[in-house]
Amino acid sequence: MNLKKMVGYKAAEFVKDGMIVGLGTGSTAYYMVEAIGKRVKEEGLSIVGVTTSHRTTDQARELGIPLKDIDEVDHIDVTIDGADEISDDYQGIKGGGAAHLFEKMVANQSEEIIWIVDDSKMVSKLGAFPLPVEVVKFGCGQVLNLLKKENLNPEFRLNDDGSKLETDSGNYIIDLHLGTIEDPHKLASFLDSVTGVVEHGLFLDSVTKVIVGREDGPEVIDVER
Amino acid sequence: MNLKKMVGYKAAEFVKDGMIVGLGTGSTAYYMVEAIGKRVKEEGLSIVGVTTSHRTTDQARELGIPLKDIDEVDHIDVTIDGADEISDDYQGIKGGGAAHLFEKMVANQSEEIIWIVDDSKMVSKLGAFPLPVEVVKFGCGQVLNLLKKENLNPEFRLNDDGSKLETDSGNYIIDLHLGTIEDPHKLASFLDSVTGVVEHGLFLDSVTKVIVGREDGPEVIDVER
Repeated sequence: MNLKKMVGYKAAEFVKDGMIVGLGTGSTAYYMVEAIGKRVKEEGLSIVGVTTSHRTTDQARELGIPLKDIDEVDHIDVTIDGADEISDDYQGIKGGGAAHLFEKMVANQSEEIIWIVDDSKMVSKLGAFPLPVEVVKFGCGQVLNLLKKENLNPEFRLNDDGSKLETDSGNYIIDLHLGTIEDPHKLASFLDSVTGVVEHGLFLDSVTKVIVGREDGPEVIDVER
Repeated sequence: MNLKKMVGYKAAEFVKDGMIVGLGTGSTAYYMVEAIGKRVKEEGLSIVGVTTSHRTTDQARELGIPLKDIDEVDHIDVTIDGADEISDDYQGIKGGGAAHLFEKMVANQSEEIIWIVDDSKMVSKLGAFPLPVEVVKFGCGQVLNLLKKENLNPEFRLNDDGSKLETDSGNYIIDLHLGTIEDPHKLASFLDSVTGVVEHGLFLDSVTKVIVGREDGPEVIDVER
């Protein structure tokens, strides 16, 4: 059973005619976009998508999903996206696909936020997954040094050829290998304050629905905010 | 009397042989770089410069000042830069030249920070000068809307042809027309937390020496930190 496909298709059921839909990025979001594309084609579902990466834009265009830029809409009804880790109090880490800056921007405009994950992403505390931090190129080595001094075990994310991976905004990604994050709000606030940090992958107090893929079927969890 | 030239040349006197020197950006910093260039040429002063913009890099190269990238040095002895406003408790606004991201990055690595200004920049409270905020392009309209809702009177900075001004990092600048900033630390912390904001122009608790150009000569103020 493909759990990513299961939750991607389940999430697409929550999309209704006339909605403006934030479309996430990554291997799980891929199936959600595919499922919405099918509904557009087969049911004549009429929606507008707002994408979170060049990759998702390409996929959605190919499927014939009408798109608008985030700055062309005055709100987003629902954003559906994957997550790299979700804690038992529904805080999340995103950015394994290096798209968390655009994903957070889109999520911030959304009335509902649905995260779709296979059950391996559900953890008690965040931190086993390396926390992605997008940083500007100028002085990125100094930012790395600062994060080292703070014992945050930072490492540049590299391409296969050893060059530094570049985001859609032309920045770099530093991954923090933390093991456990005791206080996500405190860490988020520290990272916000660091000059050169554009955005980190902590998504706090934001998700309103989580769909977890399990062998016996998708579990839909409504999160109180 | 050219007050900008006066303080630029005065500041250059604080540079000593062997130093690594952060070189600011703007119409006042221009004279400081010119003065350091003269000392390199005429006195054989041996320093390494770390620049804060493409403009300053070009100027320093032309003057024969040896340069290193910020990531090639392990510290900076002193950074000399202009400021757009300095309050009576020595907090500052910078970024009128759209270079405050690189300027803050360089300042953060510096043991001493000298600001050079003509006396028109000295104010009791910050805020008459519009506060520059560097923002990523994606979703910049949403960031503008958010800042509007917070009554921060935001406006994109434009080129003469009406297009949005682009920084050396390929981002846009939003200027906040505030009049008075009652609590700079609170505002800084809020702006740090906004997704899409790369860096704002509030430079707090950082400067260690201010050189003010007055008709009767430069005043050098040592700031306790």
